[in-house]
Amino acid sequence: MKYTLMSIVAIVALSTLGSANDLVDQAKKVGLEPIPSDKQALMKLIDNPKNPITDAKIELGKKLYFDPRLSKSGLISCNTCHNLGLGGTDGVGAAIGHKWTANPHHLNSPTVYNAVFMRSQFWDGRDPHLEQQAQGPMQAAPEMAISPELATQRISSMPGYVEAFKGVYSDGKITFERIADSIAVFERTLVTPGRYDAFLSGDSKALSAEEQSGLRVFIDKGCTSCHSGIALGGTMQPFPAVKPFKHANVGDFKGDKNSMVKVPTLRNINETTPYFHNGTVWDLAEAVKIMGETQLGVTLTEQEAVSMTAFLKALEGKKPEIIYPQLPVSQTGTPQPDSN
Amino acid sequence: MKYTLMSIVAIVALSTLGSANDLVDQAKKVGLEPIPSDKQALMKLIDNPKNPITDAKIELGKKLYFDPRLSKSGLISCNTCHNLGLGGTDGVGAAIGHKWTANPHHLNSPTVYNAVFMRSQFWDGRDPHLEQQAQGPMQAAPEMAISPELATQRISSMPGYVEAFKGVYSDGKITFERIADSIAVFERTLVTPGRYDAFLSGDSKALSAEEQSGLRVFIDKGCTSCHSGIALGGTMQPFPAVKPFKHANVGDFKGDKNSMVKVPTLRNINETTPYFHNGTVWDLAEAVKIMGETQLGVTLTEQEAVSMTAFLKALEGKKPEIIYPQLPVSQTGTPQPDSN
Repeated sequence: MKYTLMSIVAIVALSTLGSANDLVDQAKKVGLEPIPSDKQALMKLIDNPKNPITDAKIELGKKLYFDPRLSKSGLISCNTCHNLGLGGTDGVGAAIGHKWTANPHHLNSPTVYNAVFMRSQFWDGRDPHLEQQAQGPMQAAPEMAISPELATQRISSMPGYVEAFKGVYSDGKITFERIADSIAVFERTLVTPGRYDAFLSGDSKALSAEEQSGLRVFIDKGCTSCHSGIALGGTMQPFPAVKPFKHANVGDFKGDKNSMVKVPTLRNINETTPYFHNGTVWDLAEAVKIMGETQLGVTLTEQEAVSMTAFLKALEGKKPEIIYPQLPVSQTGTPQPDSN
Repeated sequence: MKYTLMSIVAIVALSTLGSANDLVDQAKKVGLEPIPSDKQALMKLIDNPKNPITDAKIELGKKLYFDPRLSKSGLISCNTCHNLGLGGTDGVGAAIGHKWTANPHHLNSPTVYNAVFMRSQFWDGRDPHLEQQAQGPMQAAPEMAISPELATQRISSMPGYVEAFKGVYSDGKITFERIADSIAVFERTLVTPGRYDAFLSGDSKALSAEEQSGLRVFIDKGCTSCHSGIALGGTMQPFPAVKPFKHANVGDFKGDKNSMVKVPTLRNINETTPYFHNGTVWDLAEAVKIMGETQLGVTLTEQEAVSMTAFLKALEGKKPEIIYPQLPVSQTGTPQPDSN
């Protein structure tokens, strides 16, 4: 034998590298994209020229995001259902809001992390931008249940917010739209690059052999026809596409015809149980199998489901470090909370 | 005249200084004390030898403090009612918990900041230590409504917590008591020194003339008979003491006889509206006047109330910087949230 042990190791390593490079090429061909590591490139992607990101607006938006006084009751903040310590979700099936009301369509709270990379917001995709999205849950009766007028009055009554708005908007005017815009700007910064992005950007060792094999299954089975782009989701797609979705609840997308549903992001999917628009499935491997059947008419083998689950878990990203904000102080004139 | 302008300024300054020094002496005589600026002295005060403070335990306790999965519903964390961005309280009258239930005695959530300096916890003072206190709200049906068994099962199901407990306790055992102990250790670090402490420690310019005048009124009227010590509160005292408390609610301390009630801390009082054990008064100056009547039989002049309010607002302290924790990930075996 002419091959030494070292040269065999080198050849195996090279072939793994070659295969990893091929996999990256394939991934890019089907529309998978990394979060750019270049700051300027990222900023260009996440910024909205109509609502430009500034440091002062991020800071204001962060305060508003964590402020429960933006709900009628004074008890529910954006972070209640989109908890930044819990993968940007609430970990419950149907979202629960004002007066302990469950979402009437049994809809699950989607993660706010990487939502900026989605083309549609809300499960029915009715808003394309986070700015519009942020206005919804504040007003929705089973969520934060506040009127634009009351939200604006509350915020306007606190000198701390008045100052902050002056620092963001030259005229200092406080409006409901600007409250939502500031929250949206904070949300635009909630991106979580991780090992998967490093892999797509050329670091062939960033994903393990099993994770790479899972990515291969993910591509080969056609999952990327819906789960593509930076978010691995975020477009509107028919659901259920091939077979009925057996986990439908009363009131939600019925599961017996092709509705158009927003494809959820798969980033940080391991942290965002339970799964699906109605939060009815709690196990990732099970969710993967159900998707195969329902959307692709494919029955995954146990090994394929295991690999793909390993790949999906590798979509965990690094969360931005958030210093918990000290919120502006309520005043005697601040409209009082109302839990009814 | 032999006095030059400069010497007059010097004399006035000296007399102000002298008067400030006298005021500090007087404050100390009636039992007011600063939060020690010396770290070792502070540590000695806040530590509990039976549950020693360590960095790992603070970090674990912080996670648990912010974790809503310590409630039956998965929606309510310690921070929901003791919000560290809102002066350590919830800003509502009666606390609202599991299933949107208001506290049956219409009790208001007290601040967690500086609670370590109190001799009693809970409005009825039934627990002397934060370790015992922390066990209460988790189990209380109208609060977090979780059983010790379920809390322990949830936490034990998550590798992230299992690792953290191993880092804190050599045997790695997870118990309900240790969950509460870790939360208590985090809470022990929530102290907020401010200008008032600097003043008591000799910086005569740390409080303005009006604030000093308010402190004088505060001492002269006898407020310190209840509001003393580092916390300016935290002991059990008769309430109402002299005249009936007119703001009683159905179900709470009746207000027509001498009950013993825990004196709330006055630190950060400007951030902890509404006031009193039942959260029925929203204006600080009004609360000050009511206390004068009810507890001391004293009718304060407008000027006295204004000065005292200025002093009370100066009790605002610097909050510890808290990085919002990334919480351990729920597993398939983690007991699911139950909002019923």
